[in-house]
Amino acid sequence: MGLAAALLLLAPANGFGQTAAEVLTQAPAAAWRGLDLEQTLIMELADGREVVIELAPAFAPRTIANIQTLTREGYFNGLSINRVQDNYVVQWGDPDGADQALRRSLGEAREAISPQEYWRPRRGLAFTPLPDGDVYAPEAGFSGGFPAARNRREAWLAHCYGMVGVGRDTPPDSGSGAQLYVVIGHSPRHLDRNITLVGRAVFGIEALAALPRGTGPLGFYQTPEERTTIASVRLASEAPDSIAQRLEVLRTDAPTFTAFVEARRNRRDAWFFEPAGRIDVCNAQPPVRLRPNP
Amino acid sequence: MGLAAALLLLAPANGFGQTAAEVLTQAPAAAWRGLDLEQTLIMELADGREVVIELAPAFAPRTIANIQTLTREGYFNGLSINRVQDNYVVQWGDPDGADQALRRSLGEAREAISPQEYWRPRRGLAFTPLPDGDVYAPEAGFSGGFPAARNRREAWLAHCYGMVGVGRDTPPDSGSGAQLYVVIGHSPRHLDRNITLVGRAVFGIEALAALPRGTGPLGFYQTPEERTTIASVRLASEAPDSIAQRLEVLRTDAPTFTAFVEARRNRRDAWFFEPAGRIDVCNAQPPVRLRPNP
Repeated sequence: MGLAAALLLLAPANGFGQTAAEVLTQAPAAAWRGLDLEQTLIMELADGREVVIELAPAFAPRTIANIQTLTREGYFNGLSINRVQDNYVVQWGDPDGADQALRRSLGEAREAISPQEYWRPRRGLAFTPLPDGDVYAPEAGFSGGFPAARNRREAWLAHCYGMVGVGRDTPPDSGSGAQLYVVIGHSPRHLDRNITLVGRAVFGIEALAALPRGTGPLGFYQTPEERTTIASVRLASEAPDSIAQRLEVLRTDAPTFTAFVEARRNRRDAWFFEPAGRIDVCNAQPPVRLRPNP
Repeated sequence: MGLAAALLLLAPANGFGQTAAEVLTQAPAAAWRGLDLEQTLIMELADGREVVIELAPAFAPRTIANIQTLTREGYFNGLSINRVQDNYVVQWGDPDGADQALRRSLGEAREAISPQEYWRPRRGLAFTPLPDGDVYAPEAGFSGGFPAARNRREAWLAHCYGMVGVGRDTPPDSGSGAQLYVVIGHSPRHLDRNITLVGRAVFGIEALAALPRGTGPLGFYQTPEERTTIASVRLASEAPDSIAQRLEVLRTDAPTFTAFVEARRNRRDAWFFEPAGRIDVCNAQPPVRLRPNP
């Protein structure tokens, strides 16, 4: 088999499969939305690469307010990526966070959010269900662009690739947001309802996912030299130079998304012998694009 | 929240969770098995790091025989990693494979395997089913240590993190095994039954998963300089110096595996508010260890 053939044949799992691409090409402008710049974090690494994280205040409003406070204070500037565990998570924050003498002050931010925000009431939340069931929850789908699940009473974000959460201590401490992680492997859905998810990396996750794995327990780096420095974390509203200004996410509450999901469930290009006819929530995340020129 | 606390609290998804660790610590020696060295590939990268791939001849015997022929011929020696697509696959082989003039000869190996080996008869295959269902198949579980699924007639390997497959052209061409890929993201289960899976990376996948992502279409590197050279691929039976000689995989057909899965379904350490009570096949892959000293 040739390499050119391979180019055609292994359709990507995270965006633009052939017939899904047709759906996206034909989508009206209204099928896409920009980011809410107040609800978007820009993490800039020491080499200048950006990771853009869209926050989900419908699910974790108090935790996110705390992260916004930390961000406005410049809390994360100069901190580092401290943990990279293969097929699991990348975690960042203060490497001395456990040392009361050395740790950086949280300033005006709170040490922990109580009560927890691991889930919220189902009522009042817009939700686009998927048709094929879910191993971990009675129902899975999307809400405001984020992978989510629900039962008869509650709704919560789902630990899919790219989802960002808050490291925490034992109950009832639910974490402050000063230690954050992003999923970089097969979706660890057993964490759902046990920890606060706050958003999704919508751009640049490969800058984190391709970092060398840490060789200490749970993928923590064993020496300071191995850590990648975070130049800054800013709100997109205070980062006019960021690519976040130009990103658009496919709306998950519009007909184009339904067509996109259907195109992913039943891939119609000649390569597929047997379209799956089914899809799980973490393979159905909405694509992100750069806003086209007018 | 402190970093030390984080150490305790984000249990790994790919191995040794707290109570699962107890299960493994107490496991009898018979719960583990060594690798069949004739059915194991050792890929050594230019920097000396090893990736160990256990082959699954119960599922793809003819394709695997062809890969063994290529390997014995030294076909892969000096070839390269040509594609790294975030949240999808790493692919390796001849970067000139599409060029009839430049491509390396396959020697005695075949150009393609026919009929295909995307699935096999269900009959005659040992299979340990999981209890919680599966989005993509009527039943999911493990066979011989490999994640798999089945319906009433057929069984097939499942595209979980770490599974290795054969790039192919359009049907009915099923590929030779000269172009191989490994899954490095959320499991692209829609590829199941559409392409030949041949095994699982049981050691060293982080050497591939942490490679820089390619910036060309589908993650192909755009320049030869970006490619990582493969020093050699050998059968473990011809690599007495390899770590493969010392690896053991938890048997998936023994009581310890059932206990391991149960410990992963219902995590009992204090950190978890709400154990999931459920697990999907790609979160239940059997752990691998170094053989303990006698």
